Amino acid sequence: MGKHTVTSFDDELGHIDRLIRDMGDLAASMVTASIQALVSSDAALGQRVISDDAVMDARQRELDDRAITLIAKRQPMAQDLRAVVGAIRMAGDLERIGDLAKNIAKRVSAVGQSSTPRNLAHSIETMSAMVLDQLNAVVDKYVARESDAMQDLRAADEKIDVKYTAVFRELLTYMMEDPRNITACTHLLFCAKNLERIGDHVTNIAENAYYVMTGQQLPPNRPKLDETSLASPAA
Amino acid sequence: MGKHTVTSFDDELGHIDRLIRDMGDLAASMVTASIQALVSSDAALGQRVISDDAVMDARQRELDDRAITLIAKRQPMAQDLRAVVGAIRMAGDLERIGDLAKNIAKRVSAVGQSSTPRNLAHSIETMSAMVLDQLNAVVDKYVARESDAMQDLRAADEKIDVKYTAVFRELLTYMMEDPRNITACTHLLFCAKNLERIGDHVTNIAENAYYVMTGQQLPPNRPKLDETSLASPAA
Repeated sequence: MGKHTVTSFDDELGHIDRLIRDMGDLAASMVTASIQALVSSDAALGQRVISDDAVMDARQRELDDRAITLIAKRQPMAQDLRAVVGAIRMAGDLERIGDLAKNIAKRVSAVGQSSTPRNLAHSIETMSAMVLDQLNAVVDKYVARESDAMQDLRAADEKIDVKYTAVFRELLTYMMEDPRNITACTHLLFCAKNLERIGDHVTNIAENAYYVMTGQQLPPNRPKLDETSLASPAA
Repeated sequence: MGKHTVTSFDDELGHIDRLIRDMGDLAASMVTASIQALVSSDAALGQRVISDDAVMDARQRELDDRAITLIAKRQPMAQDLRAVVGAIRMAGDLERIGDLAKNIAKRVSAVGQSSTPRNLAHSIETMSAMVLDQLNAVVDKYVARESDAMQDLRAADEKIDVKYTAVFRELLTYMMEDPRNITACTHLLFCAKNLERIGDHVTNIAENAYYVMTGQQLPPNRPKLDETSLASPAA
């Protein structure tokens, strides 16, 4: 059809898809390990997440270089161009997810000095499991080019926001009960916030993936709010 | 020299530079207004920052579209390609700075319900002024193509990190003194963290700008650490 050999462009795009898949798998394993390190005070596991972040950065650079070379070489139009630019953006979101997991991992030692209440650890693990389901699904559905799934994935992010608000309130009550909890709880607050932000990046990926596949924007269905900025805590 | 008309490519790059300048100015005004809204409990000013974020997003899309069209149309090589890709990355960092200012603005009402200690407001304003100096300088020096300034700008980010650690500790003491401060202080903690992250984005811009101008990476001079994740608070 166009100026380029179609199969070869598709091959290169397939390679970029595989890099997205790799980055998605790495992001998910970093999130899993960071939360496990956090709740079990496993400093060595936390360190592994921190060093994985360099691998993530390298993969993003590789994807960016390939994608930009592809644009410069092939001058793709319309859907092809959308796919390549979309991949660059998705890689940016996946790299940010890795950063956020690294930030959780860095807090392992600060939190580990105190004892996290068991209920709280459970809440954070639940939140993490929700985020991981979303992350794995968005990469799967993108690689399988299932555009219909994207709207549901974006809508499901609201559950993570609700959970975050609950964790935020729970953390405030622990701080109010006993000032000795305050330091650890502020670090856990940042960890919970990071999970909530990972959810937002998954939403970005879903929106981008939908646009790549359909050329349309997902209709805006809800304002993105961090509800804790409006709510008072449950006292 | 190349395939493209040199002046015209430079014109288009000049246009992209002006968009970077616009985004930088908007980012700086959003940060200024968000902190002013926070310390003076000015909900209307906070709302203005929140709506400015849509303007920022639109400018980023405009820059991205122009830059990608330029790559596809001109197939720039080496330094030209670096400049266009660098601009896309810098725009991404500026957009994130706008997001962080918006997040501060969203917390105005939650913090405003309590009275922020005057000392604390002063600390946050000082931190904000440091961040703004860095932000304005990095855009100025990039547009003026002063590569030598970039290493100093990156090094100066360390002062912001030190200030953030001080604010973090100060906030913890207010929380420990009086549990009624906890809710407001957790929001202020996120605001301070957002300022620290804005500093990190300025560092990214400095690194990118240096690479655009020289084709070299700035030598890695320090590990990026959020020191609060290691330190116990001043009790």
